[in-house]
Amino acid sequence: MRVVDVQLGDRSYPIYIGEQLLEQAGRYLEQHGLSKQSPLLIVTDEQVAPLHLGKLEQSLQAAGFRFVTAVVGSGETSKSVAVFEEVMTRAIEGGLDRKSAVIALGGGVVGDLAGFVAGTYMRGIRFIQMPTTVLAHDSSVGGKVAINHRLAKNMIGVFHQPELVLYDLSTLQSLPAREVSAGLAEMVKHGLIWDAEFAYWCLENAERLKALDMEAMGYGLEKGCSIKAIVVSRDERENDLRAILNLGHTIGHAIEAVAGYGEIIHGEAISIGMVGSAMIGEALGAKPGLKDTTSQMLQALGLPTVLPAHLDTDRIMGAMMHDKKFQEGRMTFIVPSAIGVVAIDHNVDYDLVRQTVEQLKKEA
Amino acid sequence: MRVVDVQLGDRSYPIYIGEQLLEQAGRYLEQHGLSKQSPLLIVTDEQVAPLHLGKLEQSLQAAGFRFVTAVVGSGETSKSVAVFEEVMTRAIEGGLDRKSAVIALGGGVVGDLAGFVAGTYMRGIRFIQMPTTVLAHDSSVGGKVAINHRLAKNMIGVFHQPELVLYDLSTLQSLPAREVSAGLAEMVKHGLIWDAEFAYWCLENAERLKALDMEAMGYGLEKGCSIKAIVVSRDERENDLRAILNLGHTIGHAIEAVAGYGEIIHGEAISIGMVGSAMIGEALGAKPGLKDTTSQMLQALGLPTVLPAHLDTDRIMGAMMHDKKFQEGRMTFIVPSAIGVVAIDHNVDYDLVRQTVEQLKKEA
Ligand SMILES: NC(=O)c1ccc[n+]([C@@H]2O[C@H](COP(=O)([O-])OP(=O)(O)OC[C@H]3O[C@@H](n4cnc5c(N)ncnc54)[C@H](O)[C@@H]3O)[C@@H](O)[C@H]2O)c1
Ligand SMILES: NC(=O)c1ccc[n+]([C@@H]2O[C@H](COP(=O)([O-])OP(=O)(O)OC[C@H]3O[C@@H](n4cnc5c(N)ncnc54)[C@H](O)[C@@H]3O)[C@@H](O)[C@H]2O)c1
Ligand SMILES: [Zn+2]
Ligand SMILES: [Zn+2]
Repeated sequence: MRVVDVQLGDRSYPIYIGEQLLEQAGRYLEQHGLSKQSPLLIVTDEQVAPLHLGKLEQSLQAAGFRFVTAVVGSGETSKSVAVFEEVMTRAIEGGLDRKSAVIALGGGVVGDLAGFVAGTYMRGIRFIQMPTTVLAHDSSVGGKVAINHRLAKNMIGVFHQPELVLYDLSTLQSLPAREVSAGLAEMVKHGLIWDAEFAYWCLENAERLKALDMEAMGYGLEKGCSIKAIVVSRDERENDLRAILNLGHTIGHAIEAVAGYGEIIHGEAISIGMVGSAMIGEALGAKPGLKDTTSQMLQALGLPTVLPAHLDTDRIMGAMMHDKKFQEGRMTFIVPSAIGVVAIDHNVDYDLVRQTVEQLKKEA
Repeated sequence: MRVVDVQLGDRSYPIYIGEQLLEQAGRYLEQHGLSKQSPLLIVTDEQVAPLHLGKLEQSLQAAGFRFVTAVVGSGETSKSVAVFEEVMTRAIEGGLDRKSAVIALGGGVVGDLAGFVAGTYMRGIRFIQMPTTVLAHDSSVGGKVAINHRLAKNMIGVFHQPELVLYDLSTLQSLPAREVSAGLAEMVKHGLIWDAEFAYWCLENAERLKALDMEAMGYGLEKGCSIKAIVVSRDERENDLRAILNLGHTIGHAIEAVAGYGEIIHGEAISIGMVGSAMIGEALGAKPGLKDTTSQMLQALGLPTVLPAHLDTDRIMGAMMHDKKFQEGRMTFIVPSAIGVVAIDHNVDYDLVRQTVEQLKKEA
């Protein structure tokens, strides 16, 4: 069993990483002082429910907890205002009170949705995450919870920290390979922004990670969570440092928006975006080879590093402008200068970004 | 000009109370460091807009602020998920960013709705209140913002403090007399829970208050806000003390729910509820006369003190049970022992409450 302590003063919380944790969920909740009088709400999705919900429900039942469950559709469309309202209905009908907790059993979608419910039900109740994707190691640290507005992703949200994260590695066995790789993109990102040694470790252990070797995966998730926790604990409300977590995301979000959510999934889009960031880094003076090493790491993890040629460069630039706004032809970018070292550059040139997007269609 | 400082550490803020403040709004926003680059969002309702929006917009324009405006329907139905989503659309289309602010121009409905938008847009942006009702002196202190779920009032919300409140007394001149009295119910409540002298002052100055004498109203709102600010600053997250602000609200909410929102408005319902609380106080040992003095104060302010006989006692009791749950026939109530002195009693008997509701139909 591995434990990461996320240090946030009186909002600090532990992340337990290990196998078969869902079967022990009741005991963990007991230890953390959750109320057996006040009903819990489990939020999960229709793909995760048949695979993993039974274990959790059994364990809670055995420990004497009361709960209701909301099963939402699988995928990003569940982070909508309409689904949010439905889950709220379930919470009210289930009689949740101020001492109740919301449990997110699933990936980042369920985590963000359930977290926003927990953050706003009666102005905020307790929140527990039980991530079932690799990518969700990212969303389980930092307290950002949100739903989407039809005009913009993650636009409606709050900061609401979980008080406990139970990361059951066993649940990952059922995750499609493509989703595993997408999650590994965020894992290696944590190396690329903070810890060169860890980035190289991901490269060396790529096969074990993709094969869901529990030892490697446990270590990788522990490191990924720890790095994010350090960054977040130095800048909880995203005033400055925390922006480095967006490495690859400016180009990545634009790719997602233009490709239409689904064709390229988030982890894949930021993989391509991180290659782009490395190119920008080289253009701004990093040692040649940065881009090649970055690409090599991502490819090893099963990720794309080339932008599909049919995606229009102007539309990608347009999406970027919509998102962050170039001011007078300049833009803020997270720019690497070496593996494990990045800086926040507020002055990246529009033309350089455009060239980079073009280049991303050509090179492997 | 009167100023109340709401002391909440680094979330402290001033409430300016005076005449013709909307005309000077631009200057106040400048002084408080609001960005002229980032657009503001004004939220108001269709009854307030034709009366007072022009003054605000002119002042902001003259000072060089950019803004967009969302005008919602008048009344409680605007505190819905659907209207919330519409206002969010306006914010996104208006290009609000993280340095933008949301301004609530209106009563408690607009304040709660706009505050919830401010609290969740991009996970929270700046919030400014410009109350136009007497009742809104209550909602402008404490940072509770919320919308309604169709199954329960104020169920979806967060704590989000404004950073500035501009209370323009001149706007109150257009407020219907019934709404003025409803607001005075919360004003005298602040005396009844904390400050006997102020409660008696409300009685003595009832005619001036109802006539919107600016000197009296300014003092009354200053006192009302100050008392609430003291209570809130000792218990920002409503762990204990803050509950005393609910004097009259347990019975009041039940009356509102059973009467159907509208027939009896909030201030009227809690007026009757406060008479009920005084009866319970006497039953539990307060000096006789407490109920009569309380009734006298409320009547002087133009408020009802008798429950309409057609409202069914069992349904009122049912609404109370739904709301707060009697546990084994006992319930938490804010119970006065004298004018200006209340206690939180967790052990009030079901039968006593039922008798009180019955009694409320008979006595003036
Ligand atoms: N809050 C944050 O800080 C943060 C950080 C990163 C990402 N996110 C959000 O996370 C979301 C993406 O997360 P995700 O990739 O986990 O998405 P997801 O929750 O949609 O999961 C991906 C897919 O895998 C399925 N799935 C989940 N667990 C499974 C399992 N154990 N076995 C089989 N199938 C399983 C899901 O049903 C879904 O179809 C995005 O909405 C993103 O905005 C949030
Ligand atoms: N957040 C809090 O702490 C808190 C505290 C108390 C009440 N509230 C909320 O406040 C709401 C009630 O507030 P309210 O009574 O101000 O309601 P309101 O905002 O609906 O205003 C009452 C009516 O007066 C109209 N109006 C407002 N200002 C006017 C003016 N200057 N001239 C003419 N008409 C005007 C409105 O259009 C409305 O029809 C409730 O939703 C309640 O839940 C919140
Ligand atoms: Zn990401
Ligand atoms: Zn009230």
